[in-house]
Amino acid sequence: MPAEQDPGGPAGPRDPHGRDRDAMAAALALSEDVRGRTSPNPPVGAVILDADGARVGAGATQPPGGPHAEVMALREAGDRARGGTAYVTLEPCAHHGRTPPCAQALLDAGIAAVHYAVADPNPAASGGGALLREAGVDVRGGLLAADVAAGPLRAWLHRTRTGRPHVTWKYAATLDGRVAAADGTSRWISGPTSRGEVHRIRAAADAVVAGTGTVLADDPWLTVRDADGGLAARQPLRVIVGTRGIPETARVLDEAAETLHIRTHDAAEVLERLAARGVVDVLLEGGPTLAGAFAAAGMIDRIVAYVAPTLLGAGPTALGPAGVSTITEAHRWRVEGVTMSGDDVRITAVPVADEGGR
Amino acid sequence: MPAEQDPGGPAGPRDPHGRDRDAMAAALALSEDVRGRTSPNPPVGAVILDADGARVGAGATQPPGGPHAEVMALREAGDRARGGTAYVTLEPCAHHGRTPPCAQALLDAGIAAVHYAVADPNPAASGGGALLREAGVDVRGGLLAADVAAGPLRAWLHRTRTGRPHVTWKYAATLDGRVAAADGTSRWISGPTSRGEVHRIRAAADAVVAGTGTVLADDPWLTVRDADGGLAARQPLRVIVGTRGIPETARVLDEAAETLHIRTHDAAEVLERLAARGVVDVLLEGGPTLAGAFAAAGMIDRIVAYVAPTLLGAGPTALGPAGVSTITEAHRWRVEGVTMSGDDVRITAVPVADEGGR
Repeated sequence: MPAEQDPGGPAGPRDPHGRDRDAMAAALALSEDVRGRTSPNPPVGAVILDADGARVGAGATQPPGGPHAEVMALREAGDRARGGTAYVTLEPCAHHGRTPPCAQALLDAGIAAVHYAVADPNPAASGGGALLREAGVDVRGGLLAADVAAGPLRAWLHRTRTGRPHVTWKYAATLDGRVAAADGTSRWISGPTSRGEVHRIRAAADAVVAGTGTVLADDPWLTVRDADGGLAARQPLRVIVGTRGIPETARVLDEAAETLHIRTHDAAEVLERLAARGVVDVLLEGGPTLAGAFAAAGMIDRIVAYVAPTLLGAGPTALGPAGVSTITEAHRWRVEGVTMSGDDVRITAVPVADEGGR
Repeated sequence: MPAEQDPGGPAGPRDPHGRDRDAMAAALALSEDVRGRTSPNPPVGAVILDADGARVGAGATQPPGGPHAEVMALREAGDRARGGTAYVTLEPCAHHGRTPPCAQALLDAGIAAVHYAVADPNPAASGGGALLREAGVDVRGGLLAADVAAGPLRAWLHRTRTGRPHVTWKYAATLDGRVAAADGTSRWISGPTSRGEVHRIRAAADAVVAGTGTVLADDPWLTVRDADGGLAARQPLRVIVGTRGIPETARVLDEAAETLHIRTHDAAEVLERLAARGVVDVLLEGGPTLAGAFAAAGMIDRIVAYVAPTLLGAGPTALGPAGVSTITEAHRWRVEGVTMSGDDVRITAVPVADEGGR
C-alpha cells in the first residue's frame, strides 16, 4: 500500500499553519549540512516535534558506520519523542545494515506520526513506511519530495537507480565560451562570488575530478577552502584522470587531501573505480578534453556553468570533442535554473534524457 | 533651473493612484511600437489626460518629416487638451526642425501640466521644459526616465552622445559557446521562442548587419517576418560587410528589403557610412569575424545572447579575434538582464565602460 501523499505546496487544509512544511524544511537543511560526509549512505535529515508541536530533536546522517538521522534526532528528543511526529527526508529504513533499522527505533521511541519526503527506492531497505503503518503509526510521504530529490538526495538516488556515481560538470567560461585567453591565462575568468561558491560545491562532493592537462596547465589545489581561505576540515577525494604523469611538485599531490591518479581516458572506467570506493557524488572540474569524454559517454548528469560577462575572442573553449559532428547530434539539456552569482550568470542544466525518468 | 524631479518608483504621495505613472507607461509603450521607423528622430510616445484625468489623446513619433508624438496626441485630444496634462517620454522640443516646436504646440493647446521622462540632451532642441515653465505650465521631468533611457530612447541617446549609431550584437550559441557544429550546420541552435524574438528585435532596428562570411555560409534573408511567417511591411536596411563578393542569387539581394554592401573590415567605417544615411539603431548579427572586429574596436554597445542548453564540443564560436591575447585584456561587460526565452537563456549585457556614463 503506498503511503498517503501529502502535497508539497504551501500550508494547506491539512497543514494550516505550515508546521509540517517548516519541520521538513528544517530536516532538509540539516541534510544539506552533511552532504559529502555520508557516502555511500544518503545524506538524510530528521526533526522531531513533541505531541504539542515543540521541536525536541534534530539530526542528520553520521559518517558511514555511525547513526542515521532518525537515531540522532531520537537521542536528542529522549522521552519527549513519545506521541510526537518525526519528519525525515527519506523513508525510514526497515533493514539491518551496519546500524539497526530506523523504523524500529521510531516505534521503540513511541513516535505517533512520521512524515517522509522521498520514498526509499532501494528494495533491500524499503518497507519502513509499511512497517510503521502496520504498527499503527500515521505515515505520510511526499512532503517537499521534489526539493529533496533534486537537492541533497539527488546523487544518491541517481546512484541507486543507475549503479554509477552522479556527475556534476562545473565550469567557468566567458560569454563567448572561453575558459582561458589565447596565451592560456585564466585567472580569473569568474568573479569572487562564483569562486567562493565552487568551494561550497566541492565541500558537498565525495570526489573532485580533473584531467592531467588541467594539472599541468593550471596546477590547481582542488581543495575546499573556507570563507577565510583556510583549508576545510573535510576534503573530498582528488581524482586526476589521464595517462600523462603528474609532477611530484604538483599541488594536487600535497598533504591537504587524498589524491587518486586514474590512468585512463575512459569515463566509464573512472566512474567504476570511484563507485568501488563508495563515491556517490562526483564534481567534474575539467578541462575540455576530459569534459568532452564524459559528455560523449553520456555520463554528465548535471551542469553548473558560471558564465562571466567578459569577451576574449580566442582561447580554449569549455568543452572539447564530445562525439558530435553535426547539429542534429547535439547533446540536449534542459535549463534547471538561472541566477546571478555576483557579476556572473550561473546556469544549471540536466539532460533532456532524464525528463522521462529513467 | 532644472525641472523638478519626479521619482520613478511606484505610486507615492505625489501620485497616490499611480495615474502619472500609468500614463507615462502608456506613452512608453506607444514609443516602443514606432521603434525602427523614426530615425534619425527619436521614437517618442505621448499621452494626454484631460483636467478630470480621462485619457483624451495618445500618439507617437511619425516617420521623418511627419508630426512628433505630442502633436499626434494633441490632434486626437482636440479641445479636451485644454487644462489637461501631457505625458511625453522625451522633453518636448523648443526648436524649429522640419516640424514646428512641440513645446509651442502644447502651449497653444492650453496644456496645464507636462510630465516628461528623459531630458533632451540635444542643445539645439533643449529648452522645451524651460519655455513651458516660463509660460506657467507645471513641468516635471524624470518619471520612468531609467526605463525610457534603457529602452526605446537608448539608441538615440547614444547617437546624440557619441555621434555614432548604437550597435546591439545579437547571437545564438550553445552552452559551450558554439554557433555551429563541426560540419558548419547551425539550424537551429536556438529554439522557436528565441527565433521569433529575433524578428521583433530586427523590426525595431534601422539596419541589420552581417558579414560576407555569414552570407556565403548560411545564405540568410535578414528580413523581418511576422508571427505567421509573412514579410513585415517595414524592413530594416540590410547591410553586408566584407570585401568578398555576394553571389547574385544570395537571399539578401532579393526584393524584400534594401541591401547595402560595404566593402571594408573596419567597424568605424561601417558605422560612419550608416550614420550618414540616418541610421541610429544597428543590429549586428555576425558572424564571428565581423563581431570580433566590432568588439576589438569597442563598437558593441549591447549584447543580446541566446544561450541554448545544448553541447557540441566542436565548431565555430560566437566571437572571433577581438584584440585580446591575455586574460587581463578581456573586454568587460555588465549583465543587464537574464531571462528564459523558451528553453534558451537570454543574457543582455552592456560594456562596463558605460557605467560611468560617457
